[in-house]
Amino acid sequence: MTAMDEHDDRVKQFTEFRQRMNQRILDEPNQVVRRFFSLDTQTYQAGALDVKTKELCGLVASMVLRCDDCISYHVAQCRDAGVNRAEMFEAFSIGLVVGGSIVIPHLRRAVDFLDRLETGDAATPGAHDHG
Amino acid sequence: MTAMDEHDDRVKQFTEFRQRMNQRILDEPNQVVRRFFSLDTQTYQAGALDVKTKELCGLVASMVLRCDDCISYHVAQCRDAGVNRAEMFEAFSIGLVVGGSIVIPHLRRAVDFLDRLETGDAATPGAHDHG
Amino acid sequence: MTAMDEHDDRVKQFTEFRQRMNQRILDEPNQVVRRFFSLDTQTYQAGALDVKTKELCGLVASMVLRCDDCISYHVAQCRDAGVNRAEMFEAFSIGLVVGGSIVIPHLRRAVDFLDRLETGDAATPGAHDHG
Amino acid sequence: MTAMDEHDDRVKQFTEFRQRMNQRILDEPNQVVRRFFSLDTQTYQAGALDVKTKELCGLVASMVLRCDDCISYHVAQCRDAGVNRAEMFEAFSIGLVVGGSIVIPHLRRAVDFLDRLETGDAATPGAHDHG
Amino acid sequence: MTAMDEHDDRVKQFTEFRQRMNQRILDEPNQVVRRFFSLDTQTYQAGALDVKTKELCGLVASMVLRCDDCISYHVAQCRDAGVNRAEMFEAFSIGLVVGGSIVIPHLRRAVDFLDRLETGDAATPGAHDHG
Amino acid sequence: MTAMDEHDDRVKQFTEFRQRMNQRILDEPNQVVRRFFSLDTQTYQAGALDVKTKELCGLVASMVLRCDDCISYHVAQCRDAGVNRAEMFEAFSIGLVVGGSIVIPHLRRAVDFLDRLETGDAATPGAHDHG
Repeated sequence: MTAMDEHDDRVKQFTEFRQRMNQRILDEPNQVVRRFFSLDTQTYQAGALDVKTKELCGLVASMVLRCDDCISYHVAQCRDAGVNRAEMFEAFSIGLVVGGSIVIPHLRRAVDFLDRLETGDAATPGAHDHG
Repeated sequence: MTAMDEHDDRVKQFTEFRQRMNQRILDEPNQVVRRFFSLDTQTYQAGALDVKTKELCGLVASMVLRCDDCISYHVAQCRDAGVNRAEMFEAFSIGLVVGGSIVIPHLRRAVDFLDRLETGDAATPGAHDHG
Repeated sequence: MTAMDEHDDRVKQFTEFRQRMNQRILDEPNQVVRRFFSLDTQTYQAGALDVKTKELCGLVASMVLRCDDCISYHVAQCRDAGVNRAEMFEAFSIGLVVGGSIVIPHLRRAVDFLDRLETGDAATPGAHDHG
Repeated sequence: MTAMDEHDDRVKQFTEFRQRMNQRILDEPNQVVRRFFSLDTQTYQAGALDVKTKELCGLVASMVLRCDDCISYHVAQCRDAGVNRAEMFEAFSIGLVVGGSIVIPHLRRAVDFLDRLETGDAATPGAHDHG
Repeated sequence: MTAMDEHDDRVKQFTEFRQRMNQRILDEPNQVVRRFFSLDTQTYQAGALDVKTKELCGLVASMVLRCDDCISYHVAQCRDAGVNRAEMFEAFSIGLVVGGSIVIPHLRRAVDFLDRLETGDAATPGAHDHG
Repeated sequence: MTAMDEHDDRVKQFTEFRQRMNQRILDEPNQVVRRFFSLDTQTYQAGALDVKTKELCGLVASMVLRCDDCISYHVAQCRDAGVNRAEMFEAFSIGLVVGGSIVIPHLRRAVDFLDRLETGDAATPGAHDHG
């Protein structure tokens, strides 16, 4: 198995893990957690601002808070909402300047994820896949 | 002197402080700091994304990182870029959901600042006033 | 006006500010923000864990995230839920050890707020006063 | 080797790594680091608050600061202190609401770890295993 | 009373507050908190690294964690340890680049505090004054 | 393949990933990102402070912000700048006390990385390898 095969395998495992655990969490009888997940979905729906703008905001917020899973998720959502590569890098640049060099390792992984999305190597998280 | 007068006085003092200290910092012979300030200005200029979108991203990033000065600054810049009150609250809602209840005290101050901007009581920071 | 009088005046102004702005925010037609405030209230209601335990968790979370307003709020809620001074300091000690010396300035203000609560000098935030 | 086998293998490797490195750190002649580890152990011992309450506070603090290793550790300690699944999810809900949607990826891993603890698949970290 | 007089008055009030609350905290019978304060003092004593290097590290750490009180404290300690203005600005530049533009408001207050230290307008916190 | 072999393999893969992605990012026509990378390099060059002191500051900043990649990078740079093991642990102790027990998992990985650097098992990141 090559390093790249192993990597793709991990992306698939991760996507499967995310969907399975989200379901597991929503099956639990804790209303606060379930309402939070529902609120999270509502937050990015079109309103006064369109989905593209909201997802860009979510992406930059995830970068400055340095959460790889959240960054990957919003990169995929941004792409689905029509954000092109130049726009994506401008969002990255805001995250980098606001959050500082501590963001750089996450930027590397974000660009790698975007590259793989563009070449079809990364699985897109489903529309109801939180965070 | 009423509480409100005292408050407005403080806004004026703060704006004056910000401009004076930015100048003081830029006068210092430290090239890294000066280049960083220049880069910060460049980040929000129109490119693939327009100024409005970039300022909204800067606002949400400032909220989740919980910096009042940065939030006030980007609220004012957003308003100058044409963001209306409903759009501003949608940006606030993203910051709140991503960042959690710890953002609430900053949301209160952000709404207060926006209210005063709309009634003309708050001084707008100048265009080159960093952070 | 003495320094202490001025200080108490500020506590009163702050409490008034918090209640006024919470109302202002809830009057706004943004459903995500309103649902978040409602969820925040629900989070600390008695369930499998009692209110005292939940408020202690909220206090320690506020300390490690270093938000003075949230710390003051949860110190008051803890006291209302029957947390005594020795218990409060054990919660403080967890926040200090998990969060590090960067928490110390917030610990000073938390102890000052607790002292004033115990001598009746600090206004207790109302039960529905978020964050 | 199946994905699940590989995963369990990693849990075992991680536990072994943690114990080996803690010993390595304590063998080092740096008194500040050693005193900190000792203080960390003392923090969660029964006092005015019982161990269960303290571990719940440690768990919520770890969630809002988003450290997977610390979350796993406190989930295991909570379980040893008698925290049941419903109580654990209420602690999770506090961490989620205070810390926001950025906590969700860590919540997924926390629930997965709890699931495996309940089915006996996860190794419990030892009582003196820091952080 | 001029704005500047009011400001100096606040510095004095703050220093008095810090010393009074530290004493109040150390008088409390909580051994974890007291041991933490003692450990904090020990951390910056000369060892393999000299005091100047340790204080510079403490300053940069305080900047990226964005705590004004801690920054002021370490700026004063650095100055006592012989750090000159050019060296201080290089430490500031590291904090700024690692931590990003969100650090800028704290940098303004750090430079203002340093200016006042150099002109004798700011009170130096005492040697045993934590955080 | 033993666990240790697998581990070393991962270090090599990671180093290769870092260098490839840095190049990929610098090839992108986004001037803000490119200027930020250039500024990051400039920040740690000798000036009023020597490289050793600057790298120690960068290391402590990375620890309190809890970024494993950044910590590994600065541990390697510190070692190249002549920081010995006792000095490294004093820097670790500052990061631990300022940042709290949440830093412990990162400390374990930092000590492991240092151990492997000292025995020649870890690849040193190149001089122009950001963050």
